[in-house]
Amino acid sequence: MITVLAGGVGAARFLEGMVQIVAPETITAIVNTGDDFILHGLHIAPDLDIVTCTLAGVIHPEQGWGIQDDSFACLEWLGRFGGPTWFQLGDRDLALHIQRTAMLRAGATLTDVADHLRRALGVAVQILPMSDDPQPTHIITAAGEFHFEEYLVERRAADHVLDVRFMGAAQPTPAVLAAIAHAERIVIAPSNPVVSIGPILALPGVRAALRESAAQVIGISPIVGGKAIKGPAVPLMHAIGLPATAVGVAQAYQDVLDVLVIDQVDAHLQPAIEALGIAVIVTDTIMRGAAEKAALARMVLHL
Amino acid sequence: MITVLAGGVGAARFLEGMVQIVAPETITAIVNTGDDFILHGLHIAPDLDIVTCTLAGVIHPEQGWGIQDDSFACLEWLGRFGGPTWFQLGDRDLALHIQRTAMLRAGATLTDVADHLRRALGVAVQILPMSDDPQPTHIITAAGEFHFEEYLVERRAADHVLDVRFMGAAQPTPAVLAAIAHAERIVIAPSNPVVSIGPILALPGVRAALRESAAQVIGISPIVGGKAIKGPAVPLMHAIGLPATAVGVAQAYQDVLDVLVIDQVDAHLQPAIEALGIAVIVTDTIMRGAAEKAALARMVLHL
Repeated sequence: MITVLAGGVGAARFLEGMVQIVAPETITAIVNTGDDFILHGLHIAPDLDIVTCTLAGVIHPEQGWGIQDDSFACLEWLGRFGGPTWFQLGDRDLALHIQRTAMLRAGATLTDVADHLRRALGVAVQILPMSDDPQPTHIITAAGEFHFEEYLVERRAADHVLDVRFMGAAQPTPAVLAAIAHAERIVIAPSNPVVSIGPILALPGVRAALRESAAQVIGISPIVGGKAIKGPAVPLMHAIGLPATAVGVAQAYQDVLDVLVIDQVDAHLQPAIEALGIAVIVTDTIMRGAAEKAALARMVLHL
Repeated sequence: MITVLAGGVGAARFLEGMVQIVAPETITAIVNTGDDFILHGLHIAPDLDIVTCTLAGVIHPEQGWGIQDDSFACLEWLGRFGGPTWFQLGDRDLALHIQRTAMLRAGATLTDVADHLRRALGVAVQILPMSDDPQPTHIITAAGEFHFEEYLVERRAADHVLDVRFMGAAQPTPAVLAAIAHAERIVIAPSNPVVSIGPILALPGVRAALRESAAQVIGISPIVGGKAIKGPAVPLMHAIGLPATAVGVAQAYQDVLDVLVIDQVDAHLQPAIEALGIAVIVTDTIMRGAAEKAALARMVLHL
């Protein structure tokens, strides 16, 4: 039993490596839902869909999000009706949101929906939303307060970030707490520490469950050479008062982490991370293709 | 001010003729919503969409329903998730249902939604749902009870029909009653008397409003030579105990109708209809193209 705390693209690519070397059904992904929002009356769950569709082999390969070979006829018409078009919703993609929204309205939990969708797409990895409750991530910027997706997509992460807030009072699901408690290994995927992993760790009881787990907790730094592999991790780390380096990642996870995997280019940061009481593995962490994904996963599993 | 009681394809084609000869903004269509149903969690309104999209010039021209040049990527994926695929929902078409459902969930009435959609599509005719309340039409058949769209589309109108029921306790909107009260001319479009016009007439107060209106009420028979121009009017007329002829149409509207327009081939039925106290106009009622649509509308308006 391997449990992976996951955001979107970085986590999905890491999981692609994992399923190459262990039986997918032994892997459980706990996925951030802080990016979830309602658009056109539909429940959009960006990270759940990225993880599910990547593992299903239907993700847009270059983008890492959205469906491969998708079309945009519905979105174009929603625009005719005055609806927002800044969030690219493909016609196939919309089917996930329509199905999710219909199931939720019929009384299913987000956990039920995520399980239904991943099974329908032939994904054997267990995919758990971090919570069945809403906990939208808001980005406080010099230009105002925005939902994370508005900040990221509509405003292209261009605003000066002052703070990050997790709204609501969400609880982790029992399945999430069980997946942490019963894991033989826990991996914090190379996802944004502030807005992908941060929302999971902010749920009541999750940090305690990670500390109490008998399993080793291994993180992979998504910041390499002071730059985010993908997305706006640098300004978001600064906004919560952490350095945008592997040391900052270690600080974000300090109370729960046993080992941090960092890239070769950050080898000089090893002493500073070890000083936080966290063991360090230095390796090549950039996942350019299937071989690198598998190598990173193999290393994390065989530690 | 001309008010037209309308179902789907037949009414939409008649309205295409009307807008050729009078200012569209002087026309109000009161549209059947008995066909409305929820599918994939979305509020589908077949007749409202047929009327709106026909007048907008975006309807599939051969079918008379669905959007021209539409694609079906979303529906195909909804099928992957176990959703029903018997009802052909195109990608563009879905935008109407998504927008409608989102607006209804946000507190808009169906009347608000219909007005928003027709304006967005550039339709000047006023389009009024018959009610803001649900009143689903159920077809009682030898094989069981079905929503009208299930009977018509999923089961291809193949079941032996025993009865027709209008469920719920819908009220006509104030706008509907006003459009009848203030009309200078009222037309009952060549739509199915049982499941298109019947649901409108079944709303409390509508028959009385039609009787009390100072305007002439003119119907156009959708049954020509004992056959429906389109759809299952014949078995549905029989199920409610009426002959499937222009005489049966006259009987269905007897208390509200001043004039019934019938086709040349039904000229021999004129005495039987006049015996019901309804004046008869015999003309060519089959609308093959724009010229015939305009001619029929001109005749109805100049009576």
